[in-house]
Amino acid sequence: MARIAVVAGDGIGPEVVGQARKVIDAVLPGVEATEYDLGAARYHRTGEVLPDSVLDELAGHDAILLGAVGDPTVPPGVLERGLLLKLRFAFDQYVNLRPSRLWPGVAGPLAAVKPGEVDLVVVREGTEGLYAGAGGSLHRDTPAEVATEESLNTRHGVERVIRDAFARARRRERRKVTLVHKTNVLTHAGSLWARAFAAVAADFPDVTTEYQHVDAAAMFLVTNPSRYDVVVTDNLFGDILTDIAAAVTGGIGLAASGCINPEGRYPSMFEPVHGSAPDIAGRGLADPVAAVLSAALLLDQLGHADAAARVTAAVATELAGRTPGAPLRTEEVGDRLAGHAVA
Amino acid sequence: MARIAVVAGDGIGPEVVGQARKVIDAVLPGVEATEYDLGAARYHRTGEVLPDSVLDELAGHDAILLGAVGDPTVPPGVLERGLLLKLRFAFDQYVNLRPSRLWPGVAGPLAAVKPGEVDLVVVREGTEGLYAGAGGSLHRDTPAEVATEESLNTRHGVERVIRDAFARARRRERRKVTLVHKTNVLTHAGSLWARAFAAVAADFPDVTTEYQHVDAAAMFLVTNPSRYDVVVTDNLFGDILTDIAAAVTGGIGLAASGCINPEGRYPSMFEPVHGSAPDIAGRGLADPVAAVLSAALLLDQLGHADAAARVTAAVATELAGRTPGAPLRTEEVGDRLAGHAVA
Ligand SMILES: CC(C)[C@H](C(=O)O)[C@@H](O)C(=O)O
Ligand SMILES: CC(C)[C@H](C(=O)O)[C@@H](O)C(=O)O
Repeated sequence: MARIAVVAGDGIGPEVVGQARKVIDAVLPGVEATEYDLGAARYHRTGEVLPDSVLDELAGHDAILLGAVGDPTVPPGVLERGLLLKLRFAFDQYVNLRPSRLWPGVAGPLAAVKPGEVDLVVVREGTEGLYAGAGGSLHRDTPAEVATEESLNTRHGVERVIRDAFARARRRERRKVTLVHKTNVLTHAGSLWARAFAAVAADFPDVTTEYQHVDAAAMFLVTNPSRYDVVVTDNLFGDILTDIAAAVTGGIGLAASGCINPEGRYPSMFEPVHGSAPDIAGRGLADPVAAVLSAALLLDQLGHADAAARVTAAVATELAGRTPGAPLRTEEVGDRLAGHAVA
Repeated sequence: MARIAVVAGDGIGPEVVGQARKVIDAVLPGVEATEYDLGAARYHRTGEVLPDSVLDELAGHDAILLGAVGDPTVPPGVLERGLLLKLRFAFDQYVNLRPSRLWPGVAGPLAAVKPGEVDLVVVREGTEGLYAGAGGSLHRDTPAEVATEESLNTRHGVERVIRDAFARARRRERRKVTLVHKTNVLTHAGSLWARAFAAVAADFPDVTTEYQHVDAAAMFLVTNPSRYDVVVTDNLFGDILTDIAAAVTGGIGLAASGCINPEGRYPSMFEPVHGSAPDIAGRGLADPVAAVLSAALLLDQLGHADAAARVTAAVATELAGRTPGAPLRTEEVGDRLAGHAVA
């Protein structure tokens, strides 16, 4: 049976993760879960972000389920670089999978787009690009200061994430992959991405392809999000585009994310895109849907496609039955989702 | 009297620039305009993109008005790097000014946002960052290929554009500047931007400030664009955010842009954000409003605030009188705008 590590984290993290575990237990009884105390609270208490011993222990699990980490009193970058990005890099989670659907029952912000009309997934590269941490500065705090950030891209890293995107497209109805980059300005990295994309596409003749510059894609996500099926893009572009995709499908409150090592050599990590929302923490008001959808991605990655599909269907039932604006209780939503998932 | 260089360019460029000139002539008779033949057509004919002699001639003008350059047969990057970016860098156009308003009469894509509710301007850095062209590749076309792109940021370059943004905010009603970056991941450049921002803010105690990560800003531009007044950001983030801002205010068909050297040491350049639209070129169907709004930015930069305001008001009148979906004729729109502007 699967062994998962649970990092509930800060703020609403424990509340929403509690519901995700409830749903996992309902569809796949017997999953072994171990809790790890990481995040802002631990950092404040001990000064530790991610001790090597914990990293080693996490490595022994099949997957990680994370709620949310952070609070406004932690200096920017500490938990991001020290925990989230550290896990992505240490566990070679090169596929950052972010599906966006405009679910029936959810009021999106776009006047012309109806529920059901958006169903896309962004496959974001997770271990390279501007996230490599290659940069520095000189003459700091003088008028002569210069600061650099370097985007590092390897054929190895680019090709494998593109291949994953095509494989996912093949399992979907429209079988279309859009490459997003900025080849007209970032000519070196752009050329590498474009050539790797063309090479992989040749192995998937049944998949339709297109290319868009990142600025155009950002625009089309607002004016015509339905046009996308699978989008593959670099780390930073993916960061931005997935938040736009979340916004046009009802907000990051519903957005799920998986940081995946497809080969399963290291554990993959699954987390809602939303933050720890300290303002509503502890009051049972947080919507656990994003955490539960992240749990569905986890189940799918671990080979339980059936259980994953039941969880996703339960979310669809839950959302279709909601009255927009009506208050919700975290626990009750979790109970309903668990109920739908086994019905 | 002002001397402007006109680069009408390709596709619908000449059509929309023709109307912009008509409107300029109406509000400020006697402007001297010299036409320069640059763009895809010249590139195909002569292989030249921007000869040094032309660059020298352009330098002798007070401003440049550009329509659109490019067509699908020019390899990506040729006109971008060789013409548009070359001008931005050669003429030290470090302020890329992109206002976005949801004009009364224009149907935006957002269900909850009413005309009149969005009025923001993005002040995008124009001469640094990932646009510096610092990058390269090794082992090209082998499995060992690596490609880099380097973002270069100087205190000099960052501080001056931030200062410009604050100065513009001071002239606006809400007096608010939002810095957008990604300080939690791009820690070196992010820190430079954040420290320069704080230093400049101290000189503008009457201006409200806030900071947002680029992914959050991309999202809020969709969920709540009204919250922004002046947004200052780096070159690549500005490229993406301005297209989102255009999308939520009715599309790039209405978006104006100025690449400005505020000190006037070199000519500034003004252009609609839209492209050359070869599919509708030569048929008199292109909307010249973005070109005319760009002409208003030009007039303002050259010190003719009054004439600029009249052009902007003419656009407001034109748009308020439009029936959504009704066909328009480029020439007729230009005639109406010129008429409104002098009424
Ligand atoms: C918290 C931050 C490091 C992270 C990122 O930039 O990847 C977040 O924005 C995300 O999208 O998961
Ligand atoms: C054409 C391209 C080089 C340019 C840019 O990236 O700046 C365009 O997208 C813009 O926004 O003006």
